[in-house]
Amino acid sequence: MTDEPLHELAHLGPHSLFTPDPVGTVRYFVDLLGMDVVAQDGNATYLRAFGDYEAWSLKVIGSDQAGVAWVSWRVTSPQALSRRVDWLESHGHPGGWVPQDRGIGPYYQVPDPDGHVFRLYYETQRYLAPEGKRPVVPTGFQAYTGRGAGVRRLDHVNLLARDVRGCREFWEAGFGLRTWEIVRLPDGVGEAAAWMSSSIQGHELIYTQERTHAHGRLHHFAYLVDSREEVLRAAEIVADARIRIEAGPSRHTAIQGFYLYTREPGGNRIEIANGGYLVFAPDAEPHIWDAQTWKTKPGWGAPLPPEFHLYGTPDVKERSER
Amino acid sequence: MTDEPLHELAHLGPHSLFTPDPVGTVRYFVDLLGMDVVAQDGNATYLRAFGDYEAWSLKVIGSDQAGVAWVSWRVTSPQALSRRVDWLESHGHPGGWVPQDRGIGPYYQVPDPDGHVFRLYYETQRYLAPEGKRPVVPTGFQAYTGRGAGVRRLDHVNLLARDVRGCREFWEAGFGLRTWEIVRLPDGVGEAAAWMSSSIQGHELIYTQERTHAHGRLHHFAYLVDSREEVLRAAEIVADARIRIEAGPSRHTAIQGFYLYTREPGGNRIEIANGGYLVFAPDAEPHIWDAQTWKTKPGWGAPLPPEFHLYGTPDVKERSER
Amino acid sequence: MTDEPLHELAHLGPHSLFTPDPVGTVRYFVDLLGMDVVAQDGNATYLRAFGDYEAWSLKVIGSDQAGVAWVSWRVTSPQALSRRVDWLESHGHPGGWVPQDRGIGPYYQVPDPDGHVFRLYYETQRYLAPEGKRPVVPTGFQAYTGRGAGVRRLDHVNLLARDVRGCREFWEAGFGLRTWEIVRLPDGVGEAAAWMSSSIQGHELIYTQERTHAHGRLHHFAYLVDSREEVLRAAEIVADARIRIEAGPSRHTAIQGFYLYTREPGGNRIEIANGGYLVFAPDAEPHIWDAQTWKTKPGWGAPLPPEFHLYGTPDVKERSER
Amino acid sequence: MTDEPLHELAHLGPHSLFTPDPVGTVRYFVDLLGMDVVAQDGNATYLRAFGDYEAWSLKVIGSDQAGVAWVSWRVTSPQALSRRVDWLESHGHPGGWVPQDRGIGPYYQVPDPDGHVFRLYYETQRYLAPEGKRPVVPTGFQAYTGRGAGVRRLDHVNLLARDVRGCREFWEAGFGLRTWEIVRLPDGVGEAAAWMSSSIQGHELIYTQERTHAHGRLHHFAYLVDSREEVLRAAEIVADARIRIEAGPSRHTAIQGFYLYTREPGGNRIEIANGGYLVFAPDAEPHIWDAQTWKTKPGWGAPLPPEFHLYGTPDVKERSER
Repeated sequence: MTDEPLHELAHLGPHSLFTPDPVGTVRYFVDLLGMDVVAQDGNATYLRAFGDYEAWSLKVIGSDQAGVAWVSWRVTSPQALSRRVDWLESHGHPGGWVPQDRGIGPYYQVPDPDGHVFRLYYETQRYLAPEGKRPVVPTGFQAYTGRGAGVRRLDHVNLLARDVRGCREFWEAGFGLRTWEIVRLPDGVGEAAAWMSSSIQGHELIYTQERTHAHGRLHHFAYLVDSREEVLRAAEIVADARIRIEAGPSRHTAIQGFYLYTREPGGNRIEIANGGYLVFAPDAEPHIWDAQTWKTKPGWGAPLPPEFHLYGTPDVKERSER
Repeated sequence: MTDEPLHELAHLGPHSLFTPDPVGTVRYFVDLLGMDVVAQDGNATYLRAFGDYEAWSLKVIGSDQAGVAWVSWRVTSPQALSRRVDWLESHGHPGGWVPQDRGIGPYYQVPDPDGHVFRLYYETQRYLAPEGKRPVVPTGFQAYTGRGAGVRRLDHVNLLARDVRGCREFWEAGFGLRTWEIVRLPDGVGEAAAWMSSSIQGHELIYTQERTHAHGRLHHFAYLVDSREEVLRAAEIVADARIRIEAGPSRHTAIQGFYLYTREPGGNRIEIANGGYLVFAPDAEPHIWDAQTWKTKPGWGAPLPPEFHLYGTPDVKERSER
Repeated sequence: MTDEPLHELAHLGPHSLFTPDPVGTVRYFVDLLGMDVVAQDGNATYLRAFGDYEAWSLKVIGSDQAGVAWVSWRVTSPQALSRRVDWLESHGHPGGWVPQDRGIGPYYQVPDPDGHVFRLYYETQRYLAPEGKRPVVPTGFQAYTGRGAGVRRLDHVNLLARDVRGCREFWEAGFGLRTWEIVRLPDGVGEAAAWMSSSIQGHELIYTQERTHAHGRLHHFAYLVDSREEVLRAAEIVADARIRIEAGPSRHTAIQGFYLYTREPGGNRIEIANGGYLVFAPDAEPHIWDAQTWKTKPGWGAPLPPEFHLYGTPDVKERSER
Repeated sequence: MTDEPLHELAHLGPHSLFTPDPVGTVRYFVDLLGMDVVAQDGNATYLRAFGDYEAWSLKVIGSDQAGVAWVSWRVTSPQALSRRVDWLESHGHPGGWVPQDRGIGPYYQVPDPDGHVFRLYYETQRYLAPEGKRPVVPTGFQAYTGRGAGVRRLDHVNLLARDVRGCREFWEAGFGLRTWEIVRLPDGVGEAAAWMSSSIQGHELIYTQERTHAHGRLHHFAYLVDSREEVLRAAEIVADARIRIEAGPSRHTAIQGFYLYTREPGGNRIEIANGGYLVFAPDAEPHIWDAQTWKTKPGWGAPLPPEFHLYGTPDVKERSER
């Protein structure tokens, strides 16, 4: 074998949000996004989307402020999990084991360079739909409820980072994530954004620039719907529910995804997303945007509001000191 | 003025279904089609779709068998209503007045030549959305709930008739309905189907051939969704709910509407529909299909199952004696 | 009969654009919007869209500057045409007859109160598709070419007017156009915009405020595609063709239409449009927006750029003196 | 390393069709599917779709009968290509090298167990869009032309095989393709169909049962469009072009892909496709349909015509002797 990083992450797995308004947040995910509650445990609510093969995917935790608790990756095999833990430990990124949680895990937990908590796991629990939730086509995991936006699954996560480049290199070097687009800062060295993936998908993990002194903040989680038409329909649903729409529906320049950005009642930014290109070439190189060209945002798509680049959770007072 | 029939019907209004399974039928319209119950009165349930400007549009009545109770037209003005009643009476189609029902009416009730009960009315009650149902855009009538297929309103009704041509001529002569397509029977005189409208819409009222000795039967009611994509999505919803899909999603040759045919739990055939052409020419003539060409069904669209041409409600044992 | 205005306009008919770049303009309509050239005559090019039942609908005329040459309405009958001409003459709006042009007309030509040239006609020529252009379904007018955005027909026209209210009242009083939305100016009397229609469609004729001293200017023509998905697709097509996108794809608050605004090479603003509500109630009243509420633009949809409210054709230097 | 097969195929690459009507076939791919001709060489025409990152993807070869000439896989690295060739040779599947063809290759050519010609390659040539074909967003490969159905790329290939199971096991054992669905024959051992992929996509390579004595026949190639709405639009385009539609638009039970099957003028079956699920679980097992359940085709979707299961190219007289 070469010393190239192995591609040993399979996909984003369960992830967890903090919210100061757990009732409102759960209602948002259930009534408006169409997810189902599968369990409740103290201040934690476990939810799933109809396209999740695992038992659950989102853990909402009541807390004093909004933000991301942790994000996980399912690793491709037990051996791969050992290898990744070895790499982390041998490269000075020690973490620790977290016991399984409602059938998924144990997890090896480790921070990314910006301090966001990540978890790696292989052992999981498949969802067994109870009577009344069984899909008519047996290759599905759950009947389609047709409630609200009807999100299929988590599509990607976007984290804010003081050092985007450092975070990107951490995942490339240690885990073989591939990067499809990078925005260079005007200094030509630092990076304003990077879009990464463990598979042919255009993006699973995005880092964009943290412009405050904070660490470990969330920009947004994005949930997938099956068509752009469904993103437009989701706009109707959330608008009539008086949920704040921050941007969209429109299309991003990077990865060409079609988006709708909302703020769930707890304050976390949640995207309803469709599309984005797939990358097939095994030797594809990232597209590097220089700061100048990036500003022109070629192609169609509405301009994003300034707050899109500043707001994250937990919210912080200072917003643009850099 | 000429002696041409005046175009004095504005649109299809409230309509009423019989069902032997009122609980199942109401659940179908509420959970799967996304309508709301606005009132309950004995064995009658009043429902509305989010795009209805009137207080309600569908009255489901528990009964021993399925079928259509009545269909109504809103007339363009009080004067027009008088004129239409005069025409009916002077042409030997006497009817009678039915008092208003939950704010809509009074209705002048009269059978069509096949015995289906029709009602004409002008007085109505606009829907005033209560708190929590108010749409964010004030030109809307009701917030979009995003539940199930999310039908906007009744699109058209298809009735079975022994004498399609007689029914068509009744509406043309007395009410100025316009006919956009006619299928001739092999005898070159009788008609197998006719598509009629009070406006630029391709179809509001369809008659197709009754092949049994029954009278007054329903072929289907069709409810509108806003895109073909939503018809496909509706198929997912009803399939997973184990509702029987009789045909579609596909496209009809006549009027070019995109369809999904289901059977609601009470047995009535209900279509989820999108599209169909609009007719702008004030001097448009109906397209007349001869029996031979009609069979070839030019253009794309799946073949319809034989039962599509035989089944109606109430169901009858004999099905193809003609 | 009452003295209410009769509804005697059937639909928008042929319309004509001036352009300083006739080659570029025709190429835009043919290659990007998918229309067909049906005739060329000196500096005039006659085009049609696949959904037009008449022989042609758009006449592009080479000129020194962009703008609208004229817009026409087809009237519902020859008698109605006489009645409308009588009304115009008896109300001090004299016009004159223009001979038929390539099979459509004669037209009675009259300016609206802002000076835009309108034409009324009844006699027309239906399109007979030549071999190779015949649609497979005989109720269609022309085979669907699948070129570019593939617009079906003109959807509406938006004219700039110094006195929006005067224009609106002219069409209501004389022609029975109905108005579905009005934006009041802060003075509570004047109007910033009005959306009018001859049928159940939400808009065929729009007036918005002219903020310069000019008269008779065009805001935009809008061509229909069959779905929002096709509007998004059109954005891809025009963006890759380096046509300027001024706004969208997004949705308007008024009439709820989904839009994409481009500038054709001659400078005229052209919309690719889908949707907008239908109005069924025969006694529907226009929704009146006060200036304050209008500014909040409730519901979803991107903000429009300032130039959207200022630019028209022909372009004028002064743009915001009012 | 374990002795598990390595996943060393990156994606389907160039592929080649035989046609007795090369002019008609090329016109079909250019005018109706929207592909571009990039080169012509004797009786061979090289085409590409706008989403291909490589210089070309389809080679149409004039011949006495229709069918598939060859299909290729791009391998993940030069080392992987060596390893795959070693595996083939050491397992008794010798092939041979074919020189590069218009910048792509060299290829190692080897038959699958049914005799279809496959080619493996790593070296390729990226497409450099000439002026006028450059996409406005630089991460794209080519401007979107908006011609016809506008297919993005090859989606999958479906081959007929006498021994579906043998073919499936060949690709699993030697190349690490993963199988997501299998239809068992009534004998419980043989297989009627298998859906395989090199990535998270639901299907790239499908084998279905050859019911004649022929070998090496093509069932269909499928080209991707970006939405179900575009599949419906494609139906309009091909129907008006009088191309035969064999089935659809509708949805398959297996992989849940939305389809439209046509016959290109040379006789090959070509699908315009959208969708199909993605498989994320690294330990996903194929869903195995027993013959009985498979026949019920749960979920929605039109029945396929009998010929769908019999016709392939080259066509053979005998069609159902098995």
